[in-house]
Amino acid sequence: MVSYSNADDMLARRERLLGVGAALFYHEPVHLVRGEGAWVWDADGRRYLDAYNNVPCVGHANPHVIEAMHRQAAMLNVHSRYLHDGVLDYAERLTGLHASGLTTTVLTCTGTEANEVALTMARIATGGLGIIVTNSAYHGNSIEVRKLSRVRTRAHADPDVRAIPVPQRYRPLVDGLDDAAAGDSYLAALREQIDSFAADGVQFAGVLFCPILANEGLPDIPGNFMARAAELVHDAGGLFICDEVQAGFGRTGRWWGYQEMGFAPDIATMGKPMGNGLPLAGVVASADLVNTFRRETRYFNTFASSPLQAATGMAVIDVIEQESLLESVTATGAYLRDELRSLAAGCEAIGDVRGYGLFVGVDWVTDRESKTPDVSGAETFVNAMRGRGVLMGKAGEHGNVLKIRPPLVFGRAHADVFLEAFRQTLREVDGNGAR
Amino acid sequence: MVSYSNADDMLARRERLLGVGAALFYHEPVHLVRGEGAWVWDADGRRYLDAYNNVPCVGHANPHVIEAMHRQAAMLNVHSRYLHDGVLDYAERLTGLHASGLTTTVLTCTGTEANEVALTMARIATGGLGIIVTNSAYHGNSIEVRKLSRVRTRAHADPDVRAIPVPQRYRPLVDGLDDAAAGDSYLAALREQIDSFAADGVQFAGVLFCPILANEGLPDIPGNFMARAAELVHDAGGLFICDEVQAGFGRTGRWWGYQEMGFAPDIATMGKPMGNGLPLAGVVASADLVNTFRRETRYFNTFASSPLQAATGMAVIDVIEQESLLESVTATGAYLRDELRSLAAGCEAIGDVRGYGLFVGVDWVTDRESKTPDVSGAETFVNAMRGRGVLMGKAGEHGNVLKIRPPLVFGRAHADVFLEAFRQTLREVDGNGAR
Repeated sequence: MVSYSNADDMLARRERLLGVGAALFYHEPVHLVRGEGAWVWDADGRRYLDAYNNVPCVGHANPHVIEAMHRQAAMLNVHSRYLHDGVLDYAERLTGLHASGLTTTVLTCTGTEANEVALTMARIATGGLGIIVTNSAYHGNSIEVRKLSRVRTRAHADPDVRAIPVPQRYRPLVDGLDDAAAGDSYLAALREQIDSFAADGVQFAGVLFCPILANEGLPDIPGNFMARAAELVHDAGGLFICDEVQAGFGRTGRWWGYQEMGFAPDIATMGKPMGNGLPLAGVVASADLVNTFRRETRYFNTFASSPLQAATGMAVIDVIEQESLLESVTATGAYLRDELRSLAAGCEAIGDVRGYGLFVGVDWVTDRESKTPDVSGAETFVNAMRGRGVLMGKAGEHGNVLKIRPPLVFGRAHADVFLEAFRQTLREVDGNGAR
Repeated sequence: MVSYSNADDMLARRERLLGVGAALFYHEPVHLVRGEGAWVWDADGRRYLDAYNNVPCVGHANPHVIEAMHRQAAMLNVHSRYLHDGVLDYAERLTGLHASGLTTTVLTCTGTEANEVALTMARIATGGLGIIVTNSAYHGNSIEVRKLSRVRTRAHADPDVRAIPVPQRYRPLVDGLDDAAAGDSYLAALREQIDSFAADGVQFAGVLFCPILANEGLPDIPGNFMARAAELVHDAGGLFICDEVQAGFGRTGRWWGYQEMGFAPDIATMGKPMGNGLPLAGVVASADLVNTFRRETRYFNTFASSPLQAATGMAVIDVIEQESLLESVTATGAYLRDELRSLAAGCEAIGDVRGYGLFVGVDWVTDRESKTPDVSGAETFVNAMRGRGVLMGKAGEHGNVLKIRPPLVFGRAHADVFLEAFRQTLREVDGNGAR
């Protein structure tokens, strides 16, 4: 084990080996060594409450998952060109959790790969290339999927990708509308983009949205937008792809974000929490869509659809079901939002508290009147929370939304620890407007 | 556990859950349940010698690797925006195995993702888009990387991707040349493609070759082609990317395929055997290339550069070193090729036996005079070997090359079992020309 004379040594070593600019959280990055449930420990033995990590959804180092992974690794782990019952059992269980039309799966290793498959599926099925996303989306890191994202890149805009503004109530496209009319305004924006493809001779393939618009900042989505967008998309001959990488696997208190939105997509992609940290992701769609995709691409992924993925993914579903995590997520999430709203009552910096299940967004602003996003205030707050032993992040189209997205095993007692730290941090940063 | 009344039931279930056309090996697919070392077992308890799988490079269910994976999973597994020593230790060990210029790494989950990173790196560094591959390459399954591959797709040819014929001695571009002149003929083909980019106003970014041309059929590469191609590419302002997904991690008896070819690339990509089955892949390059890539893309991969990947990858390197697998691969591979050449002596169907280390290609032909690839004969042979309890495959630009690519722990005793089955199968299929 390397010993460092100070934290900068470790950072320098990291820059030398991984390159300058490999992303790190916090002004003082955290050097983690151990995790259990909703807690992690750093190299100095300090404990942190994890209010950020959605990947270890059933908890850091979950014993049931670890055991399943170990048992399968000790038995067999090969690619999918042999028959294996565990893979089929998992596919059956996974598709069984989805809407009735989503019967068939293509497993991958990452959410990016899942979105690659979904894009290809939609493009083959429609014969079109045109994809619509929101203007603040992030769906992955491949060359093709990055075209859908805000991530900084040298690539020029792609004529096959268009965007709509983020459907929301807090900073709406048009002020003063009621919920239904606000929804209409975003549907009109969607229709405009669909029409712009037609005008430019680009055949429309479909839309790719996170159903809860997580990276966009978890807005309150007006006017039943998602379900109505699906109708609009279908009328225009396109397919609706839901990116469930963040929204899925119980995050909202339901299995899938699209259930929260009261509709079913044509294709759903999944990732992050699916294997509790093992690289496991995938796509579900109708048999027709999957069969056509497979026929046209002969898609094969060496590490995906493996016995190891299947055993691990199965154990994750076991825990979510056996520990009734959907119910607990719903209750704890509601409690968190209620308490945060109370804390926010006297605080100019908190413009809005929103979210679904155990995914909470706190819109950090210079003042409630102007709603001006306060990115540096949010950053100060997140770093102050780290100082108090709570890990959280920030997100949103303006980068000013506090992001609270703990493992699903984060319960009422964890929420109380979180809220106490939040209360103290609000007091500490009241130079930013908190009382 | 589902019970099937016959094999067709399981296939029907698989088609229903994974879609029609999810790839399977053999006329009678093998239903595997267990693996150990170079052996696997099916659901009926029948044992097969694994002469195909390169992913479990240190053996199926290797106890050292399983234990390392389990220990780390029980301790901590998170994304890379926290500091973690294990990840840095692994990065140091991995880059330490490479040529001195390849100091810095970007880890990913799959070889496809590694090639995505490498392409982006080369394109950013050169400001060009043009990539040259061989006309029989396969480098991965993403939308962008598939443009480099022969895989059937609806996509039209990409103006930024061009190909050269497969450099080889057995079915050369020009007959009757000596080794150096044959090498020149392929270098001329490469120069022609570089020039064609210039003629069409496409800036050249570089080449992406598997250094041993594995998917192309493991040809004997003439005239020191790879090393000389690297000079040519550099002179034209491009970068040389080596795809070490198959060639790397001791497959040839050296750590990297490029060592076998006597040169060092600008960028090397790795995958398959890297985690012995855990999704683990990556790229090594100079600090400059990686830093520029990170600055321009802010690349982040949720499951990559994780403590679990690092611990597992480290254990794989441990075993390769501690069990002196490079030496054993060299010796066993040479033995296999020698014995196969003896067996082939009287056999019209075997046109050529070639390869590197534990990667052997047997070119299956209608007759030695015409060298006409015999795809169906090769397929018959592979299936007959499966009937005799040996798993192998086929590959190559014509799809007629028997592919022998066992776990690296495949030793002399395994080779003898393999050779006996090969001998018997040759006798069995002598209608195809074997004596």
